[in-house]
Amino acid sequence: MDAAEFRRRGKEMVDYVADYLENIEKRQVYPDVEPGYLRSLIPEEAPLEAESYEDVVKDIERVIMPGVTHWHSPYFYAYFPTAHSFPAMLADMLCGAIGCIGFSWAASPACTELETVMLDWLGKMLKLPEDFLAGTEGSGGGVIQGTASEATLIALLAARSKIVKLIQTDHPDRSETDIISKLVAYSSDQAHSSVERAGLIGGVRMKKIPTDSKFSVRGAALQKVLEEDRAAGLIPFFFCATLGTTPSCAFDCITELGPICNAEKIWMHIDAAYAGSAFICPEFRPLLNGIEFADSFNFNPHKWLLVNFDCSAMWVKKRSDIIGAFKIEPLYLKHDHQESGNQSHWQIPLGRRFRSLKMWFVFRMYGLKGLQAYIRKHVGLAKEFESLVKADQRFEISADVVLGLVCFRLKGSNELNEILLKRINSARKIHLVPCQLAGKFVLRFAVCARTTESRHVREAWSHISHLASELLQELRH
Amino acid sequence: MDAAEFRRRGKEMVDYVADYLENIEKRQVYPDVEPGYLRSLIPEEAPLEAESYEDVVKDIERVIMPGVTHWHSPYFYAYFPTAHSFPAMLADMLCGAIGCIGFSWAASPACTELETVMLDWLGKMLKLPEDFLAGTEGSGGGVIQGTASEATLIALLAARSKIVKLIQTDHPDRSETDIISKLVAYSSDQAHSSVERAGLIGGVRMKKIPTDSKFSVRGAALQKVLEEDRAAGLIPFFFCATLGTTPSCAFDCITELGPICNAEKIWMHIDAAYAGSAFICPEFRPLLNGIEFADSFNFNPHKWLLVNFDCSAMWVKKRSDIIGAFKIEPLYLKHDHQESGNQSHWQIPLGRRFRSLKMWFVFRMYGLKGLQAYIRKHVGLAKEFESLVKADQRFEISADVVLGLVCFRLKGSNELNEILLKRINSARKIHLVPCQLAGKFVLRFAVCARTTESRHVREAWSHISHLASELLQELRH
Repeated sequence: MDAAEFRRRGKEMVDYVADYLENIEKRQVYPDVEPGYLRSLIPEEAPLEAESYEDVVKDIERVIMPGVTHWHSPYFYAYFPTAHSFPAMLADMLCGAIGCIGFSWAASPACTELETVMLDWLGKMLKLPEDFLAGTEGSGGGVIQGTASEATLIALLAARSKIVKLIQTDHPDRSETDIISKLVAYSSDQAHSSVERAGLIGGVRMKKIPTDSKFSVRGAALQKVLEEDRAAGLIPFFFCATLGTTPSCAFDCITELGPICNAEKIWMHIDAAYAGSAFICPEFRPLLNGIEFADSFNFNPHKWLLVNFDCSAMWVKKRSDIIGAFKIEPLYLKHDHQESGNQSHWQIPLGRRFRSLKMWFVFRMYGLKGLQAYIRKHVGLAKEFESLVKADQRFEISADVVLGLVCFRLKGSNELNEILLKRINSARKIHLVPCQLAGKFVLRFAVCARTTESRHVREAWSHISHLASELLQELRH
Repeated sequence: MDAAEFRRRGKEMVDYVADYLENIEKRQVYPDVEPGYLRSLIPEEAPLEAESYEDVVKDIERVIMPGVTHWHSPYFYAYFPTAHSFPAMLADMLCGAIGCIGFSWAASPACTELETVMLDWLGKMLKLPEDFLAGTEGSGGGVIQGTASEATLIALLAARSKIVKLIQTDHPDRSETDIISKLVAYSSDQAHSSVERAGLIGGVRMKKIPTDSKFSVRGAALQKVLEEDRAAGLIPFFFCATLGTTPSCAFDCITELGPICNAEKIWMHIDAAYAGSAFICPEFRPLLNGIEFADSFNFNPHKWLLVNFDCSAMWVKKRSDIIGAFKIEPLYLKHDHQESGNQSHWQIPLGRRFRSLKMWFVFRMYGLKGLQAYIRKHVGLAKEFESLVKADQRFEISADVVLGLVCFRLKGSNELNEILLKRINSARKIHLVPCQLAGKFVLRFAVCARTTESRHVREAWSHISHLASELLQELRH
């Protein structure tokens, strides 16, 4: 395929994409296929001779679409949203065309520099403390990671490296492995599985701090465990606070936790993967109070800020903490502007795409006001769903509705709710996933798609309510 | 921006991309900007109100392009190639539109399944041993990682987890940290910096094995270090072999190393990041002989197989080794088809884009023959450059030219070659990076762009030769 054919095929693909998104409501949100469905639909080997573009394109509807879970359907209420917008898609086309691998300043100066400035823009939208911004002379700054999992891991590894160096300064004879064997990291018992995995990868003990009745870690709970662990000869070094947990969008109390971490020289990382986007609205910014105590902070614009995956924004107060943990520089990566830095020292992969283009397009084409309006609309839809649930005596709300997630259940047994969820998902009209809260099986209703409107939410509720009636009626007989 | 505007803007962007690529030769391959150039060109904060698409688009040429290193210019000979093709860009548009996050089978069955099958297709193209293929009943299989760095890290972590379990089976009282403190991993002294970094992250000792005169690790060299380390009470557990090193595209002797690793129960991972693509050609496949001894294997179709970044293909013989090291499954990720597996247990991030679409489009639209022809063309161009260098008595070839990389230098001091490289890069006509080989400063000429033709290579050589003449003349005076 040459540029001339690409002009034609690219425009056809633009139309296919626009058609797909304009008509996504008509597609069944969750597919009917069974595991292994795809293998039998295509050959066992790659073709020897080139096929035509027509052959490939017609297989999109035959092979791919029947197995797609449509995350951007207004009937998709599972997990958390993944961001999606036209400006981001246009920027990604440009990113693909430039196709640079930004592992150093010299490898593509625009890629390194736009990222630094976009993270400053975003940091200012969130009103992050000045320490977290790069500016022209700051010692902090931001970086785009692939996912929040990577950000948590990077923060944990940087904290591990920092504490080892600190202890070795006073005790030069203590080995790294001896120190690491005593380290202990903490998170909420509601924290995402990736936090536990970061501990596993980093080879350190990871303990879960029990949460209160609002599923929030409080200062006293952390303090208690710290005292026990210090007494047992362990070395607390890292606390991952969550703002907006995955099960119920609960918020750890960082105004209490931060001062404890600072006093105890524990690195506090804040994972606000989903909720972070909301902090651009003044009314939700108080949820981030306490950020001033953190060493690193992360959230995913690729979840709720209209920037397509992957774009996980991470800031640190001291770039040197992170860079020091990873920097290894062979000759083939050295260049004249070595001191200009680059974000590949802040991440696991060395290569990186020009992802900041997506942020630049989205921030400019929505404007801060447009982005705020988008967040507020989703929160409003969640509140609307909450009222519908509350108005139905058979149901209960299982956690405070703060942003775009509603946790709810039928009053009654876990089994009852498991059956209800199974029926909801089997009907294929909408798609939800469950969570476990204080031993209870709970249904999560997350407002996800950019195109979700009040009518979709009401339709979803009436469907759920109808299935619940059927179920309860059957049980009565 | 709604779908209607996206139709218009998307088509304009397709034209912009086609124009950019059709005329890329006319752009200076390496930019003139100085560090910090970009910040002053754009506002300090995101706009409050939405801007128009015209405003954004006109800034591409004003703000971005002046700072781009054009990796797809036929005058770009630095690092290694990064892949780029029209079919891959079309597939990426579709990937963005579907915008699923494939962290489980249920989250998007097509995304999980196409990836499994595409890795089988690619494995068959490489004639990988059957053990590495998933098929319908295999215990091995492939996964798309973001980069080779991640693949190496994952392999090292899986090996670490496996050896710890193995030792604890016989010695249940030995702690994990005690075992880890004795572990030692190995790689070539020519291995990529990411291998060293994997050791750093995994918290294990990493030793570099000295290479022979061809920059290749031989069996005897590994054997010697293993004996010393075992005698010192260490536990060798991981060897990362490189096929196609970054400095000179050298090949570790895996037919010698593999049997040693197998006998000593050392996990052998093979990193063929750049060279791996060539193994689809029967004439280069012998370079992969010895793969049967490996536990895991990785190369980057996003380097040399026309699949845009990121797409790093990794295979393992035993999926369970990798999955066992990472699997943590909370309720919100559980679903009815749990046993169908998914590749997110094989990687650091949880989320993943629908990257296999790019492979599917590229493999079908080029066909195996088209892909082979592409590899052969690049190798031919490197051979052509090698002959030009060899015909000039002032120069020497610094390492065997096996694939698309030529390492060469002026006979004489390192300083002389450093000045020559500086002049080449300052002239901005072509772009190269150096490497260090056996204490010598060497210039690397890597055939990179899809559009590089014989005339570009000859032009590059005549330019280098001219700059060398100028330099040598100056020194004579």
